[in-house]
Amino acid sequence: MSTFTIDDRLLRSTEWVADLPLCRLFLQNDTRYPWFVLVPRIADVTEIYQLADADQTQLISEISLMSRYLKEELSVHKVNVGALGNVVPQLHIHVLGRDPSDATWPNPVWGVGVAKRYSTEALQEGVDRAQAWVMTKI
Amino acid sequence: MSTFTIDDRLLRSTEWVADLPLCRLFLQNDTRYPWFVLVPRIADVTEIYQLADADQTQLISEISLMSRYLKEELSVHKVNVGALGNVVPQLHIHVLGRDPSDATWPNPVWGVGVAKRYSTEALQEGVDRAQAWVMTKI
Repeated sequence: MSTFTIDDRLLRSTEWVADLPLCRLFLQNDTRYPWFVLVPRIADVTEIYQLADADQTQLISEISLMSRYLKEELSVHKVNVGALGNVVPQLHIHVLGRDPSDATWPNPVWGVGVAKRYSTEALQEGVDRAQAWVMTKI
Repeated sequence: MSTFTIDDRLLRSTEWVADLPLCRLFLQNDTRYPWFVLVPRIADVTEIYQLADADQTQLISEISLMSRYLKEELSVHKVNVGALGNVVPQLHIHVLGRDPSDATWPNPVWGVGVAKRYSTEALQEGVDRAQAWVMTKI
């Protein structure tokens, strides 16, 4: 068992928001969609079923937390949840908001087009807003 | 609250495998990928967070069950899990196996290409094999 670290490819495309009970929570640095990434803080896991039962329960609770943030706070039309890992095998779960007017609707967002980065200020605003909301819920 | 039914678009593309404690389990009728669809048997739900906490726990347990089937029985390279609902809003979760040699690797499978249907015999074999395995686990 190795030490828990986050894959560099995830770090390069995201900004840290918070450490939830199980997962490190990131905001994806891409203005095309309100998009979060949850990474369980457990080393050497690539599939959900490899987590202990209690961690699986906590994971779906954290997926739901961020889904509620997207729907109730950001008023997105639909939440998309995906655990793929075809490019970055480290277990990470995408939780993002979709709208019929967005760039790739109704298709998935992964592997399509090029990320549009936030400005430094807008990225910090996105992080601060999510962080403030999450901190009242955990 | 309406009665639970399954969206016709899901029924047309799948074959029934089993009723798990929470979800109706289907095999996607598409030979390109070993592909299952889980539909919680609860009416009027479009997002995971709308399920009761106990049902969320059961849902991730059933996602893990089918992930284990794909990895341990069918020896797939990677499991992909997705809850999108951009086209069919009824909550349904895709759990499917991916391989670097498959048609769309490493991109997602949704909305790409055209399903290749099983023969009647091969579809029944796929259902029977999954059903037999699942029945020993629940």
